[in-house]
Amino acid sequence: MTVPPKPHAPLTLKRLLIGEPLPTRALAHQTVNRVIGLAVFASDALSSTAYATEEILIILAMAGLSASVLGLSIPIAVAISVLLAIVAISYRQTIYAYPNGGGAYIVARDNLGELPAQIAGAALLTDYILTVAVSISAGVAQITSGLPELTPYRVEIAVGIILLMTIINLRGVRESGFIFSIPTYFFLTVMFVTLGIGVVRILTGSLPTVAGVEPMHHVAEPLTLFLVLRAFSSGCAAMTGVEAISNGITAFKEPRSRNAASTLVWMAVILIILFLGITLLAHQIEAVPSEVETVISQIGRTVHGQGSALYALTLGGTTLILLMAANTSYAGFPRLAALQAGDGFLPRQLTQRGNRLVFSWGIAALALLASAFVIVMGARTTALIPLYAIGVFLSFTISQTGMAVHMRKIGRLKPGERVQGLEAMLEYDPRWRVKMLISTFGAICTGIVMLVFAVTKFTAGAWFVVVLIPALVLLFFRIHYHYKDVAKALSLRQTRPDVHAYSVQTLILVDGVHAETVRVVNFAKSLGHPWKALHVAVNPQKAEKARADWGRYIGEGEFVVIPSPFRALTGPIREYVQNIMDEKPDTFVHVIMGHLVMDTFWEQALHQNSALIFNLALGDLDRVVVTMVPYQIHRNGGAKPNHAKDKAPEGVGMHAPAAEDAPDGSDQ
Amino acid sequence: MTVPPKPHAPLTLKRLLIGEPLPTRALAHQTVNRVIGLAVFASDALSSTAYATEEILIILAMAGLSASVLGLSIPIAVAISVLLAIVAISYRQTIYAYPNGGGAYIVARDNLGELPAQIAGAALLTDYILTVAVSISAGVAQITSGLPELTPYRVEIAVGIILLMTIINLRGVRESGFIFSIPTYFFLTVMFVTLGIGVVRILTGSLPTVAGVEPMHHVAEPLTLFLVLRAFSSGCAAMTGVEAISNGITAFKEPRSRNAASTLVWMAVILIILFLGITLLAHQIEAVPSEVETVISQIGRTVHGQGSALYALTLGGTTLILLMAANTSYAGFPRLAALQAGDGFLPRQLTQRGNRLVFSWGIAALALLASAFVIVMGARTTALIPLYAIGVFLSFTISQTGMAVHMRKIGRLKPGERVQGLEAMLEYDPRWRVKMLISTFGAICTGIVMLVFAVTKFTAGAWFVVVLIPALVLLFFRIHYHYKDVAKALSLRQTRPDVHAYSVQTLILVDGVHAETVRVVNFAKSLGHPWKALHVAVNPQKAEKARADWGRYIGEGEFVVIPSPFRALTGPIREYVQNIMDEKPDTFVHVIMGHLVMDTFWEQALHQNSALIFNLALGDLDRVVVTMVPYQIHRNGGAKPNHAKDKAPEGVGMHAPAAEDAPDGSDQ
Repeated sequence: MTVPPKPHAPLTLKRLLIGEPLPTRALAHQTVNRVIGLAVFASDALSSTAYATEEILIILAMAGLSASVLGLSIPIAVAISVLLAIVAISYRQTIYAYPNGGGAYIVARDNLGELPAQIAGAALLTDYILTVAVSISAGVAQITSGLPELTPYRVEIAVGIILLMTIINLRGVRESGFIFSIPTYFFLTVMFVTLGIGVVRILTGSLPTVAGVEPMHHVAEPLTLFLVLRAFSSGCAAMTGVEAISNGITAFKEPRSRNAASTLVWMAVILIILFLGITLLAHQIEAVPSEVETVISQIGRTVHGQGSALYALTLGGTTLILLMAANTSYAGFPRLAALQAGDGFLPRQLTQRGNRLVFSWGIAALALLASAFVIVMGARTTALIPLYAIGVFLSFTISQTGMAVHMRKIGRLKPGERVQGLEAMLEYDPRWRVKMLISTFGAICTGIVMLVFAVTKFTAGAWFVVVLIPALVLLFFRIHYHYKDVAKALSLRQTRPDVHAYSVQTLILVDGVHAETVRVVNFAKSLGHPWKALHVAVNPQKAEKARADWGRYIGEGEFVVIPSPFRALTGPIREYVQNIMDEKPDTFVHVIMGHLVMDTFWEQALHQNSALIFNLALGDLDRVVVTMVPYQIHRNGGAKPNHAKDKAPEGVGMHAPAAEDAPDGSDQ
Repeated sequence: MTVPPKPHAPLTLKRLLIGEPLPTRALAHQTVNRVIGLAVFASDALSSTAYATEEILIILAMAGLSASVLGLSIPIAVAISVLLAIVAISYRQTIYAYPNGGGAYIVARDNLGELPAQIAGAALLTDYILTVAVSISAGVAQITSGLPELTPYRVEIAVGIILLMTIINLRGVRESGFIFSIPTYFFLTVMFVTLGIGVVRILTGSLPTVAGVEPMHHVAEPLTLFLVLRAFSSGCAAMTGVEAISNGITAFKEPRSRNAASTLVWMAVILIILFLGITLLAHQIEAVPSEVETVISQIGRTVHGQGSALYALTLGGTTLILLMAANTSYAGFPRLAALQAGDGFLPRQLTQRGNRLVFSWGIAALALLASAFVIVMGARTTALIPLYAIGVFLSFTISQTGMAVHMRKIGRLKPGERVQGLEAMLEYDPRWRVKMLISTFGAICTGIVMLVFAVTKFTAGAWFVVVLIPALVLLFFRIHYHYKDVAKALSLRQTRPDVHAYSVQTLILVDGVHAETVRVVNFAKSLGHPWKALHVAVNPQKAEKARADWGRYIGEGEFVVIPSPFRALTGPIREYVQNIMDEKPDTFVHVIMGHLVMDTFWEQALHQNSALIFNLALGDLDRVVVTMVPYQIHRNGGAKPNHAKDKAPEGVGMHAPAAEDAPDGSDQ
């Protein structure tokens, strides 16, 4: 038998903010095309061009501000671009190999096992959280450098932006995709205009060098290979966010793999052009790293002229893309958390889709954790940066190692052979050797970059991530073993279940005797098993009154008074129940009590709600079942049926009378 | 039938901090004698001598530092002492008239009605909270002036002291009385030694004037009557705390009234002697108010000599009594809150005595509210002082007005007549006219002081109390009407209760089919009413698997799948239940579901606990009873009886098997 559903939609604050619930069948339609997909999944990667060149120059400047030293930024940027191309090609292979959602987690799970997969998961989740914290802190810093009077409220502004972003994302990916595509394309437009004008002015010989920049002060260091490596690893910040598309394949319209792969290629090409272009222009205008002016600003005012509208648009677009980069994590974190939760390594609730078909728990968890980082670090970007990017490079390394193993598997197949693997179809590919080499080379490169990162930034904060990721992996496995233990305890496969009836002893817990008590007694009588009433005598006078009222108003059934010299409520009941269970080993003890239900939380808080306390206190006893019989009290002062159609029978057992006196019966 | 109680006492942190539970019969013994009563109830009043003289001098100094101006402090102190004597005499009358606990609240309730009583209650509760916040902040300020490196942690220290004081008070009044009597008597000893030596040195002509004090800077004001009145009202801070004994009569050993009255007289005498003595000595040594040195310190070093041990003891004793003054509120607040809660104007929970027979909820509420004031105000005494004392004088005024009405009632009796009043015995007293005049005069004086207070300190913070007290009174009445409404709805006095059995329709909510499901089915079968199983198809694949498993493992009963296109759990069940209720108006709908019970909160949080959600969601439906059947999962991975004596029957319905496979049955 199947009952047809009915819509039921009172307008609440939740509905206003989040939107109408979407049916599950809308899931297939809740996807994005390539244009919006680029905006949703690439804003993190693209935004890193706003600071990657500067990070290289900051390290190189330690060895001096001469053009020959800072000029090393160009080969470094080319090397990073090559690495980026390798990683992008490797991820493109992943997108085709794992069309149901790839990313480091699934690739590692399929090819390397549970432990590497969980390490990749921990690394990526950490970095998603940090992306939100870093990007929004950096964006707020841009706002507060323009409006210094807002500086004392930077934490509040950052948390406010996180809240706004959370609401937008809870509405669902398509709408948030549309909203977030505007700033991404705005940023791309102004950056390409800036690069274009810059190139034209170079060709016409009209581009001046930057003037009036106060360079950073550094203790001069020798130009060693280590320093160049450090500059290289710092510049690799440009690569954060590249993995977002392969994690989010399922968010793309069909054909998913082709759309996602094409978006990835576009993103990589745009990223490399922007990154190389900015680095070249910076070199051309002889930009130097400065405490007070970003390299983007130096480029902007040199190309467009100080005070021009295009200069302001360049800065504005950069600020916006930094804020929007955080949105990549809102797409990536909940999906990855749902995957891990589905495997039983994170709480199962993360797999549930909310009203708007998004993973609401994951979005909420990301918002809370990122807000915590922002609050603890006081929304200071400099404090967050050293924690950042290690996780991404760890996941790059694991993912590409996994793809190398995957290609080795394919190499073992006969030509033309197709085998169904755990996650995807394995199909012979004559180019498996080349692909395996690309992935292996990428894994080695990103692994080295990660190690350089961790070593050079360890004392500045990277130690926290080095400790956090193993701790998270440990937690994930503890959760996993818990779920496994529970599943084992609940399994029916090994035994013939013994379905049969037991005897039942009903106990009614009575405080005072009033209309609610009558309802509880009626329910106990309706069940038809042997029953008696228990009263815990916290107050002996009240116990006597309850006994007298019982005789007067109920007049049947045994009324047992249990003394409680220490005024405990649950202890004496537990003992009484335990004694019954000892006497009758094949009996369910069914404890029934009334529970006054109020209209509001505050009204409810004015009552003792002892039913809830008993439920918790007796829940750990085997064979004891606790039932609360609700009795609704409404604000007009009467108990009434809550529904117009609800025709209750006559009598106080279902309806309370409108009596004028005020007995002390409400004290529970 | 009465079951004998058994002691059950696992050692917990609570037991370690608070002590062993005390039986209710110990209540009568948990009282204090006069010596400890003075320390418990008088430390607030006595501590105010530490700053009352200084408060007078600060106001007078606005008109200049000449001896003729500052000398006005002596007639002002005498006037305050007379007022204090009048108030003390009035409260002594109250103690005899209301031997079961007097104080402004009961006197007002008995003579003036509900509204004045609640105003007095709101005023006193506010002032108890402020007493804790002010006294502890002032005490911490003394500590941090001695140890300036602790200044950044003043809020933490203040909250820590509140916590310590809370634990001591949760242990019970007798123990806390003993602990707190030490600093009170230490303070009294050093102050009387100081006054004694001072008087001897005056008589022998060897007391010098104070040297080296940097006076406060003030814009000189003319010496007006208003300024003198302001100085008078500031000095009236000496009177805060006088009402504590009459509120706490029941804490005294029998004969309560005589012990309490005698303690009150002792307190008033000591207070007047100290206050006048300090004011006289201050005048003699020509003390001036200063930003950097208190008047007590000026007296101490002039009488004992700079750097002497007695000077240090004087300052130490003053610091201690300031901290201990807060303890008066720990005695007063919970008692008054319990009184008001007993009348239904505050949550009923405040009337419950905890393990150690004290009103634990009241103590906790006081600690939380005082901590909130300390945290919000940054533990700065100067910010808190203007809020303080208005409440006390409002309650003085109400209380003495009530006593005047009380005496008028007595005056209407015939000589020798005795009438039982609401709160106390009314007995003719030939001196009723004098007593009535004393109370009336006291009420007028304290009323004027209160108005002067409120007017002169309004903008400095008194406005908050002027707004807060009416708001509290409004809240108290809202709570009161709520309790009255509930009592009316539950009353059985006007109707013959209809005790009889109804039919019952049992519904089992099933997620997956596993060992817990078997137990739920067994319980439903044991109840013996018509039953069917419901599954909410949030995930259609899971629904199909559940239906198949049901057939395989349970094999009986109807299995109904309810579609849920919007993935809601409770909505579809509500509708289904509502339809049954519409069809069968004389039936209880009994919803049964399993609930996995874990060992720890964190394990519990890994499961959906949908049983709790359903309980909340269906609790407002009339005639619907929700039962959770607990199924215990223990950490070793199996379900087992929780108690050695608990002999469960054979079969999976009570015990889970130790199966090796891991089905997905744990996802609820």
